[in-house]
Amino acid sequence: MDFTELVERRQSDRHYNDKPVTREDIEKCLRAASLAPSDHNTQPWKFIVVDDPDLTEKVGAAAAGFGMNNWAHKSPVIVAVLLDQPMGSFLGGFLLGKNFALMDIGMAVENFCLQASELGLGTCILGSFDERKIKKMLGVPRGIRMPLMITMGYPRGLVRTKKRKGLEEIVSYNKYSK
Amino acid sequence: MDFTELVERRQSDRHYNDKPVTREDIEKCLRAASLAPSDHNTQPWKFIVVDDPDLTEKVGAAAAGFGMNNWAHKSPVIVAVLLDQPMGSFLGGFLLGKNFALMDIGMAVENFCLQASELGLGTCILGSFDERKIKKMLGVPRGIRMPLMITMGYPRGLVRTKKRKGLEEIVSYNKYSK
Repeated sequence: MDFTELVERRQSDRHYNDKPVTREDIEKCLRAASLAPSDHNTQPWKFIVVDDPDLTEKVGAAAAGFGMNNWAHKSPVIVAVLLDQPMGSFLGGFLLGKNFALMDIGMAVENFCLQASELGLGTCILGSFDERKIKKMLGVPRGIRMPLMITMGYPRGLVRTKKRKGLEEIVSYNKYSK
Repeated sequence: MDFTELVERRQSDRHYNDKPVTREDIEKCLRAASLAPSDHNTQPWKFIVVDDPDLTEKVGAAAAGFGMNNWAHKSPVIVAVLLDQPMGSFLGGFLLGKNFALMDIGMAVENFCLQASELGLGTCILGSFDERKIKKMLGVPRGIRMPLMITMGYPRGLVRTKKRKGLEEIVSYNKYSK
């Protein structure tokens, strides 16, 4: 499958069938994530793979709230993404008023999800969850942030057509355009 | 090329040959970027493609400083990535203490660079540059941020082996590990 096709196929899959996900496949996705670029190659990420069924149930439940993510506790695998940023990168970004590590995390997570799609796996990226509670469940120290989680499994749904702004709305040449 | 191979091939290419980059290929990369996931599909990104040689020269020069990016002014194409975040997404992230739009930008930029690699194009993501000066050159309003730029062209160098932490350093199962 070429990249254009892969990008079309990657989507947020929230419902999974019972086929178990192998650690070998999870590690292929983690390897792809680890090869993402980052600010001065700082690689400001860590991953906790939750595949113990009791724990996915609890972690998933702690992601539900405000009517969102109430399906997450049924995911066969949940990957918690930690932000582990060296002080140098933090300060460099702070001076420029932007957090490089968050963008780096985005790149790694996108690689993870694309690799999963190529393996026939579905993923959904979660940003809203009870971070404090989940960190406690997983033994993550207070000072370390967990900006995202990724749920993962073999999808039950079909590939949908993506709804996106057209390029004419988001692209201009050599000059800003509203 | 499968995704594993593509991820290995994507790298920061800073030196380009004279082969011109077509707008058709640039738009393929932008299309891939636009298909990235984002917080509630807010798509908080805009792109200014700089391919006017006088302007790439000036924009690239404004990215040089502190011994960094002094090659950027020779890039055939520079894409300025703008953060165009709706207030709802900003507030949602603010309440949770994390900026979703920056992670979204990371995902879109990674898609862009991977698509470029598949087309044989080299890219380099820049985070440090004189944002205010470049925004002025391109007519970008003050209130809109420009967190990243991407340089692009046909690479002169070979594919290098990536230096990354091993998975054992960044991955644990069902529990945090230092």
